[in-house]
Amino acid sequence: MRSHRCGELTESHLNQEVDLCGWVHRRRDHGGVIFIDLRDREGLVQVVFDPDFAEAFKLAETVRSEYVLKVHGTVRPRPAGTENPNLTTGKIEVLATHLEILNKAETPPFPLESEIEVSEETRLRFRYIDLRRPLMQQRMKMRRDVIRFLRGFLDHHGFYEVETPFLTKATPEGARDYLVPSRTHPNHFFALPQSPQLYKQLLMISGMDRYYQVVRCFRDEDLRADRQPEFTQLDIETSFMDENQIMYLMEDMIRQLFAEVLQVELPNPFPRLTYAEAMRRYGSDKPDLRIPLELVDIADLVESAEFKVFAGPANDPDGRVVALKLPGGANLSRKEIDDLTQHVAIYGAKGLAYIKIVDRSAGIDGLQSPIVKFLPVDAVRGILDRVEAETGDIVFFGADKAGVVNEAMGALRLKLGQDRGLADKDWKPLWVVDFPMFEWDEKENRWFALHHPFTAPKCSLGELESNPGQALSRAYDMVLNGTEVGGGSIRIHRTDMQHSVFKLLGIGDVEAQQKFGFLLNALRYGAPPHGGLAFGLDRLVMLMSGAASIREVMAFPKTQSAWCPMIDAPAMVTDAQLRELGIRLRRPSEGDKG
Amino acid sequence: MRSHRCGELTESHLNQEVDLCGWVHRRRDHGGVIFIDLRDREGLVQVVFDPDFAEAFKLAETVRSEYVLKVHGTVRPRPAGTENPNLTTGKIEVLATHLEILNKAETPPFPLESEIEVSEETRLRFRYIDLRRPLMQQRMKMRRDVIRFLRGFLDHHGFYEVETPFLTKATPEGARDYLVPSRTHPNHFFALPQSPQLYKQLLMISGMDRYYQVVRCFRDEDLRADRQPEFTQLDIETSFMDENQIMYLMEDMIRQLFAEVLQVELPNPFPRLTYAEAMRRYGSDKPDLRIPLELVDIADLVESAEFKVFAGPANDPDGRVVALKLPGGANLSRKEIDDLTQHVAIYGAKGLAYIKIVDRSAGIDGLQSPIVKFLPVDAVRGILDRVEAETGDIVFFGADKAGVVNEAMGALRLKLGQDRGLADKDWKPLWVVDFPMFEWDEKENRWFALHHPFTAPKCSLGELESNPGQALSRAYDMVLNGTEVGGGSIRIHRTDMQHSVFKLLGIGDVEAQQKFGFLLNALRYGAPPHGGLAFGLDRLVMLMSGAASIREVMAFPKTQSAWCPMIDAPAMVTDAQLRELGIRLRRPSEGDKG
Repeated sequence: MRSHRCGELTESHLNQEVDLCGWVHRRRDHGGVIFIDLRDREGLVQVVFDPDFAEAFKLAETVRSEYVLKVHGTVRPRPAGTENPNLTTGKIEVLATHLEILNKAETPPFPLESEIEVSEETRLRFRYIDLRRPLMQQRMKMRRDVIRFLRGFLDHHGFYEVETPFLTKATPEGARDYLVPSRTHPNHFFALPQSPQLYKQLLMISGMDRYYQVVRCFRDEDLRADRQPEFTQLDIETSFMDENQIMYLMEDMIRQLFAEVLQVELPNPFPRLTYAEAMRRYGSDKPDLRIPLELVDIADLVESAEFKVFAGPANDPDGRVVALKLPGGANLSRKEIDDLTQHVAIYGAKGLAYIKIVDRSAGIDGLQSPIVKFLPVDAVRGILDRVEAETGDIVFFGADKAGVVNEAMGALRLKLGQDRGLADKDWKPLWVVDFPMFEWDEKENRWFALHHPFTAPKCSLGELESNPGQALSRAYDMVLNGTEVGGGSIRIHRTDMQHSVFKLLGIGDVEAQQKFGFLLNALRYGAPPHGGLAFGLDRLVMLMSGAASIREVMAFPKTQSAWCPMIDAPAMVTDAQLRELGIRLRRPSEGDKG
Repeated sequence: MRSHRCGELTESHLNQEVDLCGWVHRRRDHGGVIFIDLRDREGLVQVVFDPDFAEAFKLAETVRSEYVLKVHGTVRPRPAGTENPNLTTGKIEVLATHLEILNKAETPPFPLESEIEVSEETRLRFRYIDLRRPLMQQRMKMRRDVIRFLRGFLDHHGFYEVETPFLTKATPEGARDYLVPSRTHPNHFFALPQSPQLYKQLLMISGMDRYYQVVRCFRDEDLRADRQPEFTQLDIETSFMDENQIMYLMEDMIRQLFAEVLQVELPNPFPRLTYAEAMRRYGSDKPDLRIPLELVDIADLVESAEFKVFAGPANDPDGRVVALKLPGGANLSRKEIDDLTQHVAIYGAKGLAYIKIVDRSAGIDGLQSPIVKFLPVDAVRGILDRVEAETGDIVFFGADKAGVVNEAMGALRLKLGQDRGLADKDWKPLWVVDFPMFEWDEKENRWFALHHPFTAPKCSLGELESNPGQALSRAYDMVLNGTEVGGGSIRIHRTDMQHSVFKLLGIGDVEAQQKFGFLLNALRYGAPPHGGLAFGLDRLVMLMSGAASIREVMAFPKTQSAWCPMIDAPAMVTDAQLRELGIRLRRPSEGDKG
């Protein structure tokens, strides 16, 4: 039907006859002539209808926004002075000789100019129109470019794409599963996978050597923050590589991806931080390294102070006392500091102590602070020396259980970085390594796996069992600008180690056999050393495209309440359907057919 | 950990030191030396352990089948006379100097030699071992090669891969859906997609221009024949192309695929048959053109015979009478003919009349048949002339309602072709086109869509409404060796036509708005002409790899009862889970927690 796409015409097509198909982006009547910006996936081109071609001109007079047209015409230069340097096609236009209206259109529910604010609910309800906006087309194209590059890289490195099942079994120790009732096996349910973790390990045991999959995963979580019930993972696993080889290959992939798609050069190699160091310096295991602020431990300086707020945590083995210096922050107003105090309260901090350095040369007298009077002068001096505070700076303090301090002061660090525009413009990827194997849960009085129960420890079986709290794992997370974009580990490939980890997690032999029997069995028949990781593709594309939410880089996302306003799903079903599945509703509501 | 893969070593690596990782495929002790065939994804290599390297030799003595090893050694030529021409690595061997046992293995539940028959249930239960068999590895590799090629072709032709949701809404007019209870919207259910049909149409309306997706689809069908609850589709849609352009592009893709992966040349162009002609000549809309047998209509020759079995259907407008000649078939025994009679009975045929041509030159006396005596001599002569019967042939007859004749004689044609080994060795693809829009269902007393309700008719809206039974659709099926591998159509892109088709299918305006409101709305805002198709990837790979079932080309298929013996899914869930979803079991069985 067409010879070219609208957006690809340039001066190299001058004087050529072309056939174009596309949508009416804008129509202007000017000086007895009709101008139509015709739009397709590749962009816009200006089409001119002149009364000399009476039939086409007459038809063009009836044309409105979003009509679908087929145009035949000749490419010619735009008159001097009317070129549009912002368009690829800006130096040319098409003089139309024939016009066919392929389909009419009603006035769209919102205009397509991307500057115009439209509520997200409306955008999702009319997603097929929202996706016509050039910005959304670019995002979909970038998503495709990213996935295509990643596949190419992995293909090149001998990874085979293998599809794993969606109708599978509930994942223990994970988030909530989506369940699918089985009709042929009454009272039994499939679960949609939260990730193909165990399948990819089984593929390694089956000798597949290197595997990847661009795969949908499902989590029935409360959709706080930026979550979706279904999301896409680049899932990767390999045999016979250790964590250093895997990390290097993966960062190389991401480096090449950024070079190819964004023309951005990422560091080589990526810096690595241990979990301990990341928590110590940034209060977070996914630090945003663009922000040049760091937490500094000062417990040793205040442990003998009378000020219990500091001395208590300083003397508590589970406590932590830190200082965070904001250079030039002495100009923060009382109101601004109150807001920051409220912000850290979200994370459990009971207050936000600070010292403003009005004049460093004036000693204690040059400080403005509600707490200095409670601290020995030596301690204050020691703190200011350690954080290298200078006149005009402010120093904030966090003192509490280490978990609270890390969360609250980590969040404060991010907020200060954003509010004050401190973030470096560069991309800041890193690896976080040496995670603890387990976290102790006070409430449930048992160990939990920090990653998942298939993660291999760095230590021997004996060391693991004698001191699980000290054991580090062979896990690694890739963090980019404060967002975890990927994570993985070397897996356990020996039955005895897997049994031991299950036992430490409180999963007895019977339960282990019932839930993970297939894995424990498989490990007995020659499991190779293996490991891998998974990238959150939605997040990665979101970051790369500068979008504010993963919903902006998915063609048909759901709302925060897991609803699709476009097709109106989920929906009610008939009683006959429920009957076939052997289930009934607990509280049928009025109007329900079930 | 390794420098090469086992299966890739050749003479070009002679004298090189190599590190290999892999599984012990076979161990032989011979002449004081230990030979181990070490296996990985790429194949086998012979590793030799000599007592000269005492430590490695001693360890090698403990090694058993399926142990995972790491070997360091030197590539050397095999001694003259011991080369194995069947292996890529058959001219060399590796003299091991170091050995590390990476993991031990118990004796596998079945040996990996692919010649050995193992029950499918066992193979599926231990799929991770089954997949180690070289034949299964080849199939997984072919699957990956096929998908990779197809993606590359579509990328090259400007198709964008776009992901569509899995948590969607029930499909009307389709097979049974898998349902997913929503927790956040009580009493509401998602459905897993039977295909992304409507999403891909919405993508066209959103200006995506050309779309594809390698996508999982779900059907909760009774798993007769070779079906799986989840299967993979190559889903394709394009705007601004007509059916001929689509068919040509798609057959070009398949032609290039076969050339690339199988080094097979398919015809250019693919032959096309109308639905009417396919039914007339082969009794099937997916004819296996490798079999050189055809149905021949003979109603006109027997319509005035006294033999009611033939004359009845010959005079019934819904009836059909056909002859099917099997050259050289006069030697079929009574028993063989009885078996064929039973075979056609499956498809509803009440018997199987035949004429054996013992001696064509002897006229009626040269025939052997239970029915000739009931037919006028002229009719018999007319039949034999029309099918060009010769001495030694047999002619079978089908006479009944056209539907029964087509099914039964189409099946007989296939069976004769298989039993007698008549099938051509070549690949025989074709397009079947000009399907009827609708089929009349006597029982429900209404029209059904032969494809789906979004398929465009070849005729105008007026013609469609005045004579729906005569209307042909713009649908096309790609058939390969008697299997439908792909199918699609040009879609309806105008609201009035879509309304009209819904009405003909008995879907009123209210129901249409309720079920398909989003599509009807979308068509109003500038829908481009569009069409596409979907390929069944499992079937395509099955055909290409010569496997007997789609289960043989899926990594982790389910059994015929939609069960996974490996992970034991579906499984029972807790009452707490059901409670959260607002559902309960209708008949909790003993031991159920729900």
